[in-house]
Amino acid sequence: MTLFRGLSAFPLTPTDAEGHVDTEGLARFLERIQRAGADSIGLLGSTGGYAYLTREERKRAVQAAVECIGGKTPLVVGVGALRTDEAQALARDAKSAGADGLLLAPMSYVPLNEDEVFQHFVAVAEAGELPLCIYNNPSTTRFTFSDALIARLSEVSNIVAVKMPLAANDDYAGELARLRSMTPDTFTIGYSGDWGAADALLAGCDTWYSVAAGLLAVPALALTRAAQSGDAVESTRLNRAFGPLWTLFKHYGSFRVMFVIADYLGLAHVQPPRPILPLPEDAGDDIKQALEKLK
Amino acid sequence: MTLFRGLSAFPLTPTDAEGHVDTEGLARFLERIQRAGADSIGLLGSTGGYAYLTREERKRAVQAAVECIGGKTPLVVGVGALRTDEAQALARDAKSAGADGLLLAPMSYVPLNEDEVFQHFVAVAEAGELPLCIYNNPSTTRFTFSDALIARLSEVSNIVAVKMPLAANDDYAGELARLRSMTPDTFTIGYSGDWGAADALLAGCDTWYSVAAGLLAVPALALTRAAQSGDAVESTRLNRAFGPLWTLFKHYGSFRVMFVIADYLGLAHVQPPRPILPLPEDAGDDIKQALEKLK
Repeated sequence: MTLFRGLSAFPLTPTDAEGHVDTEGLARFLERIQRAGADSIGLLGSTGGYAYLTREERKRAVQAAVECIGGKTPLVVGVGALRTDEAQALARDAKSAGADGLLLAPMSYVPLNEDEVFQHFVAVAEAGELPLCIYNNPSTTRFTFSDALIARLSEVSNIVAVKMPLAANDDYAGELARLRSMTPDTFTIGYSGDWGAADALLAGCDTWYSVAAGLLAVPALALTRAAQSGDAVESTRLNRAFGPLWTLFKHYGSFRVMFVIADYLGLAHVQPPRPILPLPEDAGDDIKQALEKLK
Repeated sequence: MTLFRGLSAFPLTPTDAEGHVDTEGLARFLERIQRAGADSIGLLGSTGGYAYLTREERKRAVQAAVECIGGKTPLVVGVGALRTDEAQALARDAKSAGADGLLLAPMSYVPLNEDEVFQHFVAVAEAGELPLCIYNNPSTTRFTFSDALIARLSEVSNIVAVKMPLAANDDYAGELARLRSMTPDTFTIGYSGDWGAADALLAGCDTWYSVAAGLLAVPALALTRAAQSGDAVESTRLNRAFGPLWTLFKHYGSFRVMFVIADYLGLAHVQPPRPILPLPEDAGDDIKQALEKLK
């Protein structure tokens, strides 16, 4: 089962200005990922703009994805919501529509404490009845998981993986050793923050949860396989080719950059949900140059 | 017009476990604030749990409030949402239902930049066609307004006030002087973070946007009037009586504490929206003691 192992590609969810999902555009993204051979698809992640879509549109997106993927690539679906009952409903929707796994970020408005996040995860994992990955993403949720909370959650039924942000001081080996000592052997530990992926994979993490792979799965998979096989020279070379893109991700935020790439590749002419604004024209030139490097 | 001046009291919005507003419970809160003589009511603020309610329930709450208040106290309504079009719709709903002013926080998932927040505010202020207060609350929105952005927004049609968080180093006089020099004379500057209110009012701010006043408007108004009249001795004495409550607000978060107070006062036996958990029993005893101090 590669559900929470290897390369997980996170596509955008193309929508119109009112937030209605363009299911044909989405299918083009998914087919591209599938053709490249990514290990799983992370639908409705942060890159998939789940936070900006209604329950109904999220259901439509999952149904369209299941139809398009046809069980050939494991499908993980983001079910985060500010309310526990809403996240539970989203988890049930995803399961009914045919998702293989769930991804849950502790979205917050009132800052949450550890007990609240724990209870929230238990409730959603129970409702979803699917393998669930903890989405640890302090930059969007404003909640930082302690090692102890991850360990406590790793003992909960259905919770089988964690998606971590960039490790402090790039110490992936240290963080992995620490988390592995506190979690079951079957619990997988992966990373997001694309520019840290080569280091994290070389340090032995289980999964790269990748924004770039949502549109650039071929080079992302090459990097993943090189790093998984322990080939530091080749993975460093491939990661260097991504360098200009990582710089733009850090500068503009990867979410905004991906819309420009989708347009440039001729896959979908869509814009991010307002209040997020499209990038200025001159950013487009830099992005094109970054993509040239990856050819 | 006292819409964005003096004491603005922010009530809880009582709901059932599914997020349906208990309009009778809400009316009890509003009548209590009105009897105390607060200068305005801030409905569906952070304390009012707006982030956890659907558009339909928020509309019901505003309609119930307008009916209950009957125009006797200015009514400000929070219209924050993650999407610009949704915040615009909420602003139109609030105006149609009879609100007097709007309060807008830049809710975010993907972190926003200054231009995005500026455009968002322009769009909502235009849609709402009511005086609007900028809700600067980094602890819930993860967006910090620069002085320059507040100044830029203060020139926008309908944007007439700002609700600031606690000032850095308690330097309210310095911050007020700085912001006043950059904004129109008619633009009002108020503060939230109840434990800084006495200092902020004594330093000459225009408004106290108060969580405590949602249920304890009588002592909050006494403190406001003493500080507005420049009586440092009396306002310090009154603020000291609030001291134990401020300590609990800081420790547990004011949102969680207010539910216990509502129960203790016999006004509504309601709980916060999950994932936020009710406080443990022993917190109740501390809260009772803090309220005794205010009698």
